[in-house]
Amino acid sequence: MKKIEKIEILRHSTAHVLAAAVLGMFPEAKFGMGPAVENGFYYDFDLPRTLIPEDLEILENKMKEIIKANIKFEQADASIEEAENDFKELGQSYKVELIRDLKEEGHKKVCIYRAGIFVDLCSGPHLDYTGEIPADAFKLTRISGAYWKSDEKNKQLQRIYGVAFESKKDLDEYLRSMEDAKERDHRKIGKELKLFHIDENVGKGLPLWMPKGAAIRQVLQRFIEDEETKRGYLRTYTPVIGNVKLYKISGHWDHYKNDMYPPIKIDDEEYILRPMTCPHQFMIYKAEQHSYRELPLRYAELAEMYRKEKSGELSGLMRVMGFTLNDAHIFCTPEQLEKEFLDVLDLIQFSLKALGINKEVSFRASLRDKEKSKYLNNDKLWDESEKILTDILDKAGIKYEVGVGEAAFYGPKADIQIKNVLGKEETIITMQIDLNSAERFDLFYIDQSGKKQRPVIIHRSAIGCIERTMAFLIEHYAGAFPVWLSSVQVIIIPVSEKFNEYGEKIFEELKNKDIRAEIDKSSESLGKRIREAEKQKIPYILVVGEKEEKAESVAVRMRENKKQEVMKIKEFIEKIEKEIKEKI
Amino acid sequence: MKKIEKIEILRHSTAHVLAAAVLGMFPEAKFGMGPAVENGFYYDFDLPRTLIPEDLEILENKMKEIIKANIKFEQADASIEEAENDFKELGQSYKVELIRDLKEEGHKKVCIYRAGIFVDLCSGPHLDYTGEIPADAFKLTRISGAYWKSDEKNKQLQRIYGVAFESKKDLDEYLRSMEDAKERDHRKIGKELKLFHIDENVGKGLPLWMPKGAAIRQVLQRFIEDEETKRGYLRTYTPVIGNVKLYKISGHWDHYKNDMYPPIKIDDEEYILRPMTCPHQFMIYKAEQHSYRELPLRYAELAEMYRKEKSGELSGLMRVMGFTLNDAHIFCTPEQLEKEFLDVLDLIQFSLKALGINKEVSFRASLRDKEKSKYLNNDKLWDESEKILTDILDKAGIKYEVGVGEAAFYGPKADIQIKNVLGKEETIITMQIDLNSAERFDLFYIDQSGKKQRPVIIHRSAIGCIERTMAFLIEHYAGAFPVWLSSVQVIIIPVSEKFNEYGEKIFEELKNKDIRAEIDKSSESLGKRIREAEKQKIPYILVVGEKEEKAESVAVRMRENKKQEVMKIKEFIEKIEKEIKEKI
Repeated sequence: MKKIEKIEILRHSTAHVLAAAVLGMFPEAKFGMGPAVENGFYYDFDLPRTLIPEDLEILENKMKEIIKANIKFEQADASIEEAENDFKELGQSYKVELIRDLKEEGHKKVCIYRAGIFVDLCSGPHLDYTGEIPADAFKLTRISGAYWKSDEKNKQLQRIYGVAFESKKDLDEYLRSMEDAKERDHRKIGKELKLFHIDENVGKGLPLWMPKGAAIRQVLQRFIEDEETKRGYLRTYTPVIGNVKLYKISGHWDHYKNDMYPPIKIDDEEYILRPMTCPHQFMIYKAEQHSYRELPLRYAELAEMYRKEKSGELSGLMRVMGFTLNDAHIFCTPEQLEKEFLDVLDLIQFSLKALGINKEVSFRASLRDKEKSKYLNNDKLWDESEKILTDILDKAGIKYEVGVGEAAFYGPKADIQIKNVLGKEETIITMQIDLNSAERFDLFYIDQSGKKQRPVIIHRSAIGCIERTMAFLIEHYAGAFPVWLSSVQVIIIPVSEKFNEYGEKIFEELKNKDIRAEIDKSSESLGKRIREAEKQKIPYILVVGEKEEKAESVAVRMRENKKQEVMKIKEFIEKIEKEIKEKI
Repeated sequence: MKKIEKIEILRHSTAHVLAAAVLGMFPEAKFGMGPAVENGFYYDFDLPRTLIPEDLEILENKMKEIIKANIKFEQADASIEEAENDFKELGQSYKVELIRDLKEEGHKKVCIYRAGIFVDLCSGPHLDYTGEIPADAFKLTRISGAYWKSDEKNKQLQRIYGVAFESKKDLDEYLRSMEDAKERDHRKIGKELKLFHIDENVGKGLPLWMPKGAAIRQVLQRFIEDEETKRGYLRTYTPVIGNVKLYKISGHWDHYKNDMYPPIKIDDEEYILRPMTCPHQFMIYKAEQHSYRELPLRYAELAEMYRKEKSGELSGLMRVMGFTLNDAHIFCTPEQLEKEFLDVLDLIQFSLKALGINKEVSFRASLRDKEKSKYLNNDKLWDESEKILTDILDKAGIKYEVGVGEAAFYGPKADIQIKNVLGKEETIITMQIDLNSAERFDLFYIDQSGKKQRPVIIHRSAIGCIERTMAFLIEHYAGAFPVWLSSVQVIIIPVSEKFNEYGEKIFEELKNKDIRAEIDKSSESLGKRIREAEKQKIPYILVVGEKEEKAESVAVRMRENKKQEVMKIKEFIEKIEKEIKEKI
């Protein structure tokens, strides 16, 4: 833990040096807040003009001078009135506001840090001297707008972000990983490999899956559908809208309204773009009477749904208005709950392994916080379901963090977290225990003695939202998908027109085996066509010429090791079929 | 033609006899209109009280008396003023209104028919005597409400429907076919076989596919997806909503607005539940530049969409608010159009044959009518595309009717029509030639000389909307789907608990072969379980007991011929796998 503190002190001190540099450049600058953050720091300023990227270099140089000057960070306590006067005199109205806030909270004294010309209201701690900051291990990275106190009603300030490390080596490594992340960004690769397209005329948060992306999506969807069928799930199909009545019953109307798009008025009724599949599947459960003999009942659906996102936050496949969730609801008896939940865990781990991302995830138990109005109101059931959830996770030997306040409004969740290429953690898959909804929807089953009982409901995904999971997969593989997931598994390149016919023959043979193949008969040079296929990250390039035709063989260039190997056609087909089957 | 006229005269005369009977029952009755219709007739009445079903029998008996009395239908001409006075005196205000309408149109004389106490304004012709109506060949079928002159602003009258034929035999045959239709009604079978459910809390036009229906839907969807892939289609996935901007470009906003649900306002933008897939797929085409070498490009999608229906007309899977269309758009050069269109025809015929309904359909060429404001405005392109469409249909040797005014707003269509069990014709599949949209969306390809050219676009389905096609299939097969489409293909019934284990073994074996199987281990009697399985129309019932276990065999009861046959397990699996593969 000590190491983290030390680097945080370094980063926060660098933020003060930035502020001092800004003051040197703009004597009239007013200061907002400037904390250390992951990998670095930021500081918010109210400045006489808008910053331009070129300013960052000027500021970096000024910062280096301040570091070189090795100025002492001087700490002093001041009475709150004294501080208010001092900062008022300095014209630092934001700091004055902060001091007044502290005063209202009952504080009598504040802590002040000074380094050269820059004085800040700050509880520290800081380094002793600016010279302790390694001058070659920080970098200002970007400028953005930020509302004072994050409130849209306040003035927008200019925020400068920086990164800071203990050594140049660490900085270089970080910058390299950022470069790599940029290269792996699913938006960039999605465009290069023609996987998806976002069009302003359709909507920023409404990605269109182009044929190459759609081919992968189809494989993903059928993979999980078939696995679910094997494990005793039943499928449903339900519409993307539902009457508002449904969401009044479910509690969404009271507890989830801010996450839903406004209703569509049709005749005298109102319909909602659904934010979840549960109410629809509940109505299917309710459409017939169930006996305990039928339970557990597992309804699965690839369900399109819509949840409100700020339009400024919409991005690629990761943050979207509408998405397709690999969703399911399991209706079971209380006695069956543990086994069903463990089976869900097993399915998830099986699926993540097949996708090759099982080592990238971590677990979180998402529980309720104290703001009870956010949740359905039944303390007993909440306590019970939170205990069941954590007990099962413990029993399964799963290590997890606890996320207080991260529960769904109707029950606690086990979340599976994954970091994107930029290190930002996102939830990819959730499992929930719901002891509330059966009551609200009056769902029941008839038990052995002929009495009505409430089923326990598990809400779960196995591979998450197709959109978001695809985004992670693109970034994880940097577009070089394993063979079973590749949109084009094989491309055939005849060395010249003379061998197009032989190429076509192989193409047909592959197609008949349901292998996704293309043939490039264009008039471009062999080298150019191979390079293009490599850029498209196609796992196998089959070059065919006279030698190959005579021997009924193909020259196979493998993406993985860039080697070329001549094989009989039959042999190649056996190899690739095995890889597809085994999901290598 | 003569025969049709004769039966129409009979039906219309029976309507007059009904009116006379009503007058006998309600002397204060006022008469609306009473024409002959398909299979019978109706008459609208303004009566002092609401009719009840029991009234129909009373009226039928009165009608039989009138027929037995063999009253003459007397025809007379009258001056329009004379007629107006006469009907005013009779208190027949609706008839007076009709006479005034005729007067306004410039008529001087009207024709009057009288049979006993009932006088009607009527142009005939009628039979000579009521006795010519076969008293055992008509039936009053139902009572409904109907606005005077079909205008909701007018008073609602009571309509009595009847059917009438030339012989009792014809009537009985018709009634039997109606009984059969009722038995085949997809709403009835959908409920019995638990295929789908309509719930008021979700929405009347928003069917929920229950697991048994969803299993069939998945088979249907994968069947057409795979067939399209074989035929060189590429898949896309696009969202169910789109920005209004898109529909302004496409022309939907100007020409199709009445068929769309109102927009959803999100931030400063408006989004529409899409009524068609074309604009979304056009944006995918537009996302990259295309060379003539890539054409034809065929984009296919199972696309959910929403079109406005009057809520009173929503019904089962046939008339819905939202549906999933097996949709595709083919972008090709003008030279490729004919071959592509013929290939589409071939795919449709292949698919209809696989579904077993290829003999039930007829073709229609749906062309533009004179109301040009309904269509995109380009006479030359319209004439051209209508000619291409009918030429291709002629060339393919397809017999078709012409539906003037049935075109899409952007181009002419070839529609495939099918009759439902009640004899009502509906469009199940369409193909369209679109010479308009490429221009509107600025879609192009680069031709051999490097110039931009507009592609021709074919809009087409192959198996239509999943919902509607499913409705037809349910009715066509009366729920007894062919094996490859059955939700449960095999049910295993152990004769007693002792053989559950052997049953489970077979169940697992079938599951491993991807055969959709169930096992009924309930404590009900063997006979009851077999009857239940028969009611569920499961193609194969496997009864297993001691003899079967010893011989590793199963006693197979076949739905088709109700025969039972003992087979080795292996033999049965081979048989059913062959049937599934061959779509028998």
